[in-house]
Amino acid sequence: MIKVIFLGFGNVNSHLLKTLYKTNKVVVKQAFNRNFIKMISPFENIPFTDDISKIEDADIYIIGIPDDAISSFSESLSFQNKLVVHTSGGAAMNVLSSKNRRGIFYPLQTFSKHREVDFKNIPICIEAENSKDLEILHSLGRLISENVVEISSEKRAKLHLAAVFVNNFVNHLYEIGSEILKDEDLPFEMLKPLIAETASKIESLSPKNAQTGPARRNDKKTIEKHLHLLEGSPYKKIYELFTEQLNHNYGKEL
Amino acid sequence: MIKVIFLGFGNVNSHLLKTLYKTNKVVVKQAFNRNFIKMISPFENIPFTDDISKIEDADIYIIGIPDDAISSFSESLSFQNKLVVHTSGGAAMNVLSSKNRRGIFYPLQTFSKHREVDFKNIPICIEAENSKDLEILHSLGRLISENVVEISSEKRAKLHLAAVFVNNFVNHLYEIGSEILKDEDLPFEMLKPLIAETASKIESLSPKNAQTGPARRNDKKTIEKHLHLLEGSPYKKIYELFTEQLNHNYGKEL
Repeated sequence: MIKVIFLGFGNVNSHLLKTLYKTNKVVVKQAFNRNFIKMISPFENIPFTDDISKIEDADIYIIGIPDDAISSFSESLSFQNKLVVHTSGGAAMNVLSSKNRRGIFYPLQTFSKHREVDFKNIPICIEAENSKDLEILHSLGRLISENVVEISSEKRAKLHLAAVFVNNFVNHLYEIGSEILKDEDLPFEMLKPLIAETASKIESLSPKNAQTGPARRNDKKTIEKHLHLLEGSPYKKIYELFTEQLNHNYGKEL
Repeated sequence: MIKVIFLGFGNVNSHLLKTLYKTNKVVVKQAFNRNFIKMISPFENIPFTDDISKIEDADIYIIGIPDDAISSFSESLSFQNKLVVHTSGGAAMNVLSSKNRRGIFYPLQTFSKHREVDFKNIPICIEAENSKDLEILHSLGRLISENVVEISSEKRAKLHLAAVFVNNFVNHLYEIGSEILKDEDLPFEMLKPLIAETASKIESLSPKNAQTGPARRNDKKTIEKHLHLLEGSPYKKIYELFTEQLNHNYGKEL
């Protein structure tokens, strides 16, 4: 069985650890974190260390720490010529120290502390310096996901950029919706069926075909009314920018 | 049984007609549309007219036409003192001609032609000029939804504004994600699990607590890299604006 050690215990690594552990098809040999982490049930038997010099021997080391810290942390590891991967969408493979064999194991998903995630459909983006390591990462990925894809650091950077738009920025729009309702003492719950359907629609329609609304139809009266309602709000700029782009994209159809 | 006539046959009204018809608890007495519409199975028995002078007698008339056209269309109806409602989020109740009893029956959802929608959880926003009509609209709404709410035209305008952010603008971000991937020959499918989870997260977390990503953590290096990747793209402005707002909202936490 593949022996895995987790280096860092943020959202990505803790979800990966739990999911891989539950397959019973890898040995989670150890978890390291700079600060102490209490391993709770059913993971209490996984050895934990906060001492970098006590990291043990394994087949794969999975780094899950902030992008900025990956380079110096990987340089500070005491072992050599092992397969060391990171889980970041935004950092290139070559930020890892070259004293170990480098690789990427990036699950394209948003992870929150207290939220279970089903890995089955999550794309696991892998990269390695040689075909043997790539095969190891493939095997590891397939244990948890049906969607393991080999992708270069350059393409992964674009994928991560796209993810920021459809995840972080989308969530910011949810927040704006929630604030507009709060000002009217209306519950955010009212928007939830619309949010769910908007996301669900693009399972079967392309975003281009799914688009509706005043900006798409260039309904100037409604747009003006909305801009008036947004007078003095920081969200007016967003409204203007999106309306301008939607008008531009769909204008030819009208 | 309540007798309903649909005036206009766009996305909202055709979905409403189908859903109300299927309850077997209203009589869909007629459908009117300016242009001929072929009523297909199982609705082939619903009488259709494209002649405004041939609109029959009913308890409720439901107008589903573009906002701009509601006022003059409602004025052109030949009958008086009937309950006439429109289904628009953006138009006030008083755009309807005062020669009939006015009301609102606004389902807060996005409707596309070939996509079935389950009305059960959709908020139906109603408004009327008197309590008797309000009760009729309540009864009608409850036939299809568990979430019928009385809301003033002013609040509904804000609700509609919020809907534009979480639906049309969110969908535009999906489109941007899809285009970024297309440039790299990556399939949009890769983003779908992330899109689904982003929407699903806010069922249990507030958007504020669900937020993650480089802008929230003020990860300047990643942000710079992304802005560099967006050089020359119309989406750079959106990236800058969202990053600025997210930094502002979460900056105090860091």
